[in-house]
Amino acid sequence: MRIINFKKQINIIASGTAAGRMECEGRLGEIFDCIDKSDRFGMDTWEKSESEMQRRALDHAIKRSGYVKEQIDALYAGDLLNQCVGSSFGLVSFGIPFFGIYGACSTLGEGMMLASLMIESGGGSVCACSCSSHNCSAERQFRFPLEYGGQRPPTAQWTVTGAAAHILSCERAGMAKIKSALVGVAIDSGVADANNMGAAMAPAAADTLLRYFSETRQSPEEYDLILTGDLGYEGSSILHTLTKDRGLDISSVHDDCGMIIFDRERQDVHSGGSGCGCSGIVFGSYILPKLASGELSSVLLIPTGALMNPASIQQGQSILGIAHLLNISSCGKEV
Amino acid sequence: MRIINFKKQINIIASGTAAGRMECEGRLGEIFDCIDKSDRFGMDTWEKSESEMQRRALDHAIKRSGYVKEQIDALYAGDLLNQCVGSSFGLVSFGIPFFGIYGACSTLGEGMMLASLMIESGGGSVCACSCSSHNCSAERQFRFPLEYGGQRPPTAQWTVTGAAAHILSCERAGMAKIKSALVGVAIDSGVADANNMGAAMAPAAADTLLRYFSETRQSPEEYDLILTGDLGYEGSSILHTLTKDRGLDISSVHDDCGMIIFDRERQDVHSGGSGCGCSGIVFGSYILPKLASGELSSVLLIPTGALMNPASIQQGQSILGIAHLLNISSCGKEV
Repeated sequence: MRIINFKKQINIIASGTAAGRMECEGRLGEIFDCIDKSDRFGMDTWEKSESEMQRRALDHAIKRSGYVKEQIDALYAGDLLNQCVGSSFGLVSFGIPFFGIYGACSTLGEGMMLASLMIESGGGSVCACSCSSHNCSAERQFRFPLEYGGQRPPTAQWTVTGAAAHILSCERAGMAKIKSALVGVAIDSGVADANNMGAAMAPAAADTLLRYFSETRQSPEEYDLILTGDLGYEGSSILHTLTKDRGLDISSVHDDCGMIIFDRERQDVHSGGSGCGCSGIVFGSYILPKLASGELSSVLLIPTGALMNPASIQQGQSILGIAHLLNISSCGKEV
Repeated sequence: MRIINFKKQINIIASGTAAGRMECEGRLGEIFDCIDKSDRFGMDTWEKSESEMQRRALDHAIKRSGYVKEQIDALYAGDLLNQCVGSSFGLVSFGIPFFGIYGACSTLGEGMMLASLMIESGGGSVCACSCSSHNCSAERQFRFPLEYGGQRPPTAQWTVTGAAAHILSCERAGMAKIKSALVGVAIDSGVADANNMGAAMAPAAADTLLRYFSETRQSPEEYDLILTGDLGYEGSSILHTLTKDRGLDISSVHDDCGMIIFDRERQDVHSGGSGCGCSGIVFGSYILPKLASGELSSVLLIPTGALMNPASIQQGQSILGIAHLLNISSCGKEV
């Protein structure tokens, strides 16, 4: 598949984010919309806390958009919990026509892409997308219960406690617009270490970026920022090598939400942040405002995901990577 | 959201199905494309067997479509396994741009809908969708390992071992065409019994059908068949009551893939079949050929899903239902 260039003006008109303690103590500080430093969000289980984060983030995004929930044509949502229950239970109360999606940590990108395609098709004109991860629900599901206190290797990443919702519309002016998209391909590079997700995802990010620049014949420097989702320090380094080996040097304009969110000098996060919430809250609360203000004009957003589960690891399967690309620009640039 | 009426001719041009022993011994017999009565499909774990079913089903569908995999613009796939690994590992070898979806047993409908929207948007012209369930991987993940031999109540359903893939295109003549679609809304009706999925999903099917007939002002008899996904005997009976209470009598034209697939006189399946594969293989190998031959002219396909996981049940959450609707007609009808 080639790049999809949207003919309609698909605007990101509002965002809403929720985050926990570690995220607020990181490099970005308390910039998020809904904060609970107990990470509990008023709930008695971590899974319900994650659902509540998504509910608050979407509620905030809808309010900020100026729409009411009955005006939203479709909702695309996913998370890392088994059967994506963070999304379904968190968002059922809105009553919005619902598409459950599973793109692992690439869910932000998959949701925005599908919402853009819905709007482009004319099937709907206002769509929402939502995603989340919670450190405490993810760790006990994918690795060990927190109480176990297992030691983590240097390549391990810290799952972000965060939820992000975005409202897309072709009807109203936005904070930024989605100009084009390139769908990711699942890539099996043979990595089977669940404590090195960056290495598993970097080849997928490289594949998507190489396909994008091969088709557009642009140079990376034409963008203000090439922002991957959660490769972390380890995965970003691998991405730079993989792309440079193929003649594409992105190092001067590349950053990664997993490196942006935490401060690894002060926080015990090893290779950086990860999870659906990582790219979600960094984009929604840090990058999108810069696009709205014009501080950034053009961003390639590439949320990255690792497709696996504990049983697949135990059964000797490797971890598949995927990376979806969105070309997002400030609305002011071409007006 | 209102009904989406597709302006392009979105054709289902081919299907491929895979099934196991129980399915071949059911009411439909050995009509499926890829059969392995050991249910193993050459693999050493049930999860890998499920992935292999999806691989074979998609391979068959692509071959039958006349396309090669490089011509397929996007693939939408999901299953019931944690993190949808049945789909990602089963389909990675095709290298097709990939959207992971999670709609529980409604995945057939969600995938066809998203693929139709991609084609309608002009972003791609040939799309594939794929889904699966496997009795042995599902039972041990959601309920008990098979070896436990737990007794099942009369409302329980039997998860179908099956995978189905469909190729949609606006370029070539098809076996049937998708005329319109109505996206489902997640419904919480308070049912929390994991052995009565039919009761949890019936209110969602009723909601979607009532919205559809309210907007179209048609009567159910204008369709040859209203086909729900996997409500089974229990859920179908509840659906008839719920719709009749609201003035919509579908009983003369309604059937359910969960009632069609197995023979409950001869097979110990209690309330009928369930799983993504249930609606997938019944539609792909039984209904679609009838649309192609003209034996059926117009079908409302409503795959149903139950959004939950074992942890959400243990934490006292109810089971959410969802039902997506597709209006599918034979290509001959209006030509």
